[in-house]
Amino acid sequence: MRQIITGFHAIEEKVRSACESGVIDGLSLSYSKIGPRVKKILDVAKTAGIPCSQVDNKNLDSLVQSLPEVARDHRGIVLCAEGQSDSAQNEVNFDTWIAQTALSEEKSTILVLDSITDPHNVGAILRSCDQFGVDLAIMPNRNSVNNVSENEIIARSSAGASTYVPFCVAKNLNRAVQKIKEAGFWVYGADAGGESVQKLKFPAKTCIIMGSEGTGISRLLEEQCDSIVSIPTCGKIDSLNVSVATGVLLYERYRQSLA
Amino acid sequence: MRQIITGFHAIEEKVRSACESGVIDGLSLSYSKIGPRVKKILDVAKTAGIPCSQVDNKNLDSLVQSLPEVARDHRGIVLCAEGQSDSAQNEVNFDTWIAQTALSEEKSTILVLDSITDPHNVGAILRSCDQFGVDLAIMPNRNSVNNVSENEIIARSSAGASTYVPFCVAKNLNRAVQKIKEAGFWVYGADAGGESVQKLKFPAKTCIIMGSEGTGISRLLEEQCDSIVSIPTCGKIDSLNVSVATGVLLYERYRQSLA
Repeated sequence: MRQIITGFHAIEEKVRSACESGVIDGLSLSYSKIGPRVKKILDVAKTAGIPCSQVDNKNLDSLVQSLPEVARDHRGIVLCAEGQSDSAQNEVNFDTWIAQTALSEEKSTILVLDSITDPHNVGAILRSCDQFGVDLAIMPNRNSVNNVSENEIIARSSAGASTYVPFCVAKNLNRAVQKIKEAGFWVYGADAGGESVQKLKFPAKTCIIMGSEGTGISRLLEEQCDSIVSIPTCGKIDSLNVSVATGVLLYERYRQSLA
Repeated sequence: MRQIITGFHAIEEKVRSACESGVIDGLSLSYSKIGPRVKKILDVAKTAGIPCSQVDNKNLDSLVQSLPEVARDHRGIVLCAEGQSDSAQNEVNFDTWIAQTALSEEKSTILVLDSITDPHNVGAILRSCDQFGVDLAIMPNRNSVNNVSENEIIARSSAGASTYVPFCVAKNLNRAVQKIKEAGFWVYGADAGGESVQKLKFPAKTCIIMGSEGTGISRLLEEQCDSIVSIPTCGKIDSLNVSVATGVLLYERYRQSLA
């Protein structure tokens, strides 16, 4: 399978990760004009031995034709990855992971996404997971999990984090959360009307469940939560964007762990 | 001018705001089938005297045809606003506002967006401005400020906040920031390598400048900042999504003001 990657961030991360691992097989860069960011990428890629070829803009346009509209703005550089599978590196087996984590006393953070499927939000959330040290992101079992277009948007919105953040896809979120509790995690559901996040102290093993903006956390899952946590707000509308809300909660979790 | 509004959040806010102000002239709702959220909106609208008519889905499809693609998913309800201008209500005159604020000792928060023009990000940021009590959002002088499509995306992504949050468009951000400093504000630029936000105490009059993800804050503007502020992070990629980063800084500002 050939993957076409656009976006400075996503390309930089992929090139950097390939350099670090030394696995550059199947990677190649095509670029049109050399601006400062393209030059930076080319320098790293050439050092690592990734083939780079200058083409005209029309070639780039045709490379990105199969991508969803938002990913088609190539800004003069496109990365092709032949025969590479992105998800293999950082997809974990939930049962193995949770069994190991249950034995450990170390700080650990799990983020559960309940029915958040918008790929822009999922991408931005994965980026926050990377930046605030989430140990495992659990994604819903989307029908569209194999949808190449959606995965492209997630990869691009995540600025490369989708290739780093350990994740798994749970077919049954209720059962997964039950096992998370059995492994010693305190499970917080994010919703209005809960305890203010600035007043609580997250324990070493913390799991946060985020629901979608429209419907919130599903009833069965909410019943399993040990606490409901809220972000203190004022204002006239009733909520934050879900990726902003997730970012704030993960920041607060990370901030407390530094203190 | 006729405005077509889709999205449960945006419609709810517009209807609620119309009810509160009593100004329902030119508003009308068209809906196809009655789900729980549509019913909730209709109940409020009918009480307020806004005309509601049941139509078939094809009618709704044709109403939203002129909207950008992301706003065309009407989910069974569309609000039409004839002859209403959204921006008039909450667009402020910068010079008047800053002159008044200069005389006051009260807590005040200004957010400056430097070259952040992606309408999804601007919308999510306005939503955070509402939720975390920003007193003035200053937007860059976009060439596309009169672009109806972009404004529709901003309105929709902001879930209605774009009709509430006081804002102004600055033709010259450098001069605006100079006046902000003269009015007694401490100006923070958000960038990597600054003081960690968890270690600083925002003063009563705080101004935060956010730059775009690609290029950051412009050099001239950065030179005017009193401090650079950073969000503590770990992780492999180099930054958060800009609307998430803005949300975290505004949350921290709001959290401190509660403490």
